[in-house]
Amino acid sequence: METISENTCFGGTQGVYRHKSSSTGGDMTFGLFLPAEAQDGPVPILWYLSGLTCTHENAMTKAGAQAWCAEQGIAIVFPDTSPRGEDVADDAAYDLGQGAGFYVDATQAPWAPHFQMWTYIADELPALLGENFAIDLERQAITGHSMGGHGALTLAMGMPGRFKSVSAFAPISNPTASDWGKKQLSAYLGDDQSLWAKHDATLMMRETGFNGPVLIDTGTQDQFIDLLKPEALAEAANARRQQATLRLQPGYDHSYFFVASFIEEHVAFHADALYAS
Amino acid sequence: METISENTCFGGTQGVYRHKSSSTGGDMTFGLFLPAEAQDGPVPILWYLSGLTCTHENAMTKAGAQAWCAEQGIAIVFPDTSPRGEDVADDAAYDLGQGAGFYVDATQAPWAPHFQMWTYIADELPALLGENFAIDLERQAITGHSMGGHGALTLAMGMPGRFKSVSAFAPISNPTASDWGKKQLSAYLGDDQSLWAKHDATLMMRETGFNGPVLIDTGTQDQFIDLLKPEALAEAANARRQQATLRLQPGYDHSYFFVASFIEEHVAFHADALYAS
Repeated sequence: METISENTCFGGTQGVYRHKSSSTGGDMTFGLFLPAEAQDGPVPILWYLSGLTCTHENAMTKAGAQAWCAEQGIAIVFPDTSPRGEDVADDAAYDLGQGAGFYVDATQAPWAPHFQMWTYIADELPALLGENFAIDLERQAITGHSMGGHGALTLAMGMPGRFKSVSAFAPISNPTASDWGKKQLSAYLGDDQSLWAKHDATLMMRETGFNGPVLIDTGTQDQFIDLLKPEALAEAANARRQQATLRLQPGYDHSYFFVASFIEEHVAFHADALYAS
Repeated sequence: METISENTCFGGTQGVYRHKSSSTGGDMTFGLFLPAEAQDGPVPILWYLSGLTCTHENAMTKAGAQAWCAEQGIAIVFPDTSPRGEDVADDAAYDLGQGAGFYVDATQAPWAPHFQMWTYIADELPALLGENFAIDLERQAITGHSMGGHGALTLAMGMPGRFKSVSAFAPISNPTASDWGKKQLSAYLGDDQSLWAKHDATLMMRETGFNGPVLIDTGTQDQFIDLLKPEALAEAANARRQQATLRLQPGYDHSYFFVASFIEEHVAFHADALYAS
């Protein structure tokens, strides 16, 4: 593992690291903020999964999460959204290929060799963090924005017991029924739609739900809201009687100004769950 | 108008009053809390509509709202849930007739002569309050519990501009599709279901929505949740992109212990709207 940068930040350290990834078959870069408390021992960790076109860097620089993670004594990790490189398949569209991994393990050509983002986030990166940093892997929580909100919700419901809490900002909530989803799931997983279900937060909410608290914010002026389909997930969560807070925030759009406006509340929400036991 | 009781309470006055009602054709009783600020001039008012079997008294004594209304300088009124008396029609069931007015104007026998609760809450009682107390009718907000949540939501959406904000605790959200609703709407309004639509919060949310903030809490362990149908209203609010916060509160049931646990947040929510302009 290579240290790209380390900056003192809110009394802790904002680092950027690169490592050879066995799951994605190439170099992967991630950001990690460690609060001051990590100098004394392992701290809880919040995963932040980013959206389409983002790298590890967007949320790390624009969401303003470190202030609140420092206040709560929680680490926050910002993984990349896909494998990258000249030998990695790509597509001219912004919403397929590099920058658009959708947090699945691709089975189809040309994506399968590198696009293994589920395994990378679920298995490889947490193990790496646990080995190299003062991270308590027994206390993990997860959030994300847009495609990353989709990833946060599906990973949280797909791995019962892994995460204490899950939240999302403007998540892609029902990709099997959206143009943000059908194209990508078909490309990465093939046309057997039964294989898509575990990558659809609404379908997973109907089937399994989440054993812990859920918080979701979406802006009423989100320019992509018809693609996000918050109404489908809201119906499923309510029908399930899932412990959840689902908010439509008046006037907010899909940008990081929206994320930054509510990140304090999301960090506090996760801190409550991470420190509860 | 007759004063039944007045008690000093959180620096203000909790009163109970009785008056001859032109809309319901008999005596009606209500509770009204006025904060200390009402001694100096008109204050904003929050309506609290109660649920099945309740009188004006249940929430007044069990919800704990006065503490927070006093803090915010807001009046709160607790109307009765139906006309009452020996000459008023009734039914052996707890969910029809006296104590179960459903906030509609009945058109059917034997209910029509007295069961005019929509007009009572929408027209008669506010006029009475404005004439007799230091209430600012330009700043009204509304909440309610169960059947009263249904009333709050349908009155708020049915009278655009009247209320600055609306909230509800465990509201009956889709009565045209629930056993808490079909029987009563049929009895009070007749079998023409097109006349029921303006008394169904989900249908109204689809048609008109609410021009202001909405807050709804329901307990995940609510023993009546299958009758409340929060999922229908959640779907409608999200599909509409209605400014709203819809929460499922883990472990809470349908009782006043639930209402009391969250009343502070509801009062603060309404205060934000009432003092915004």
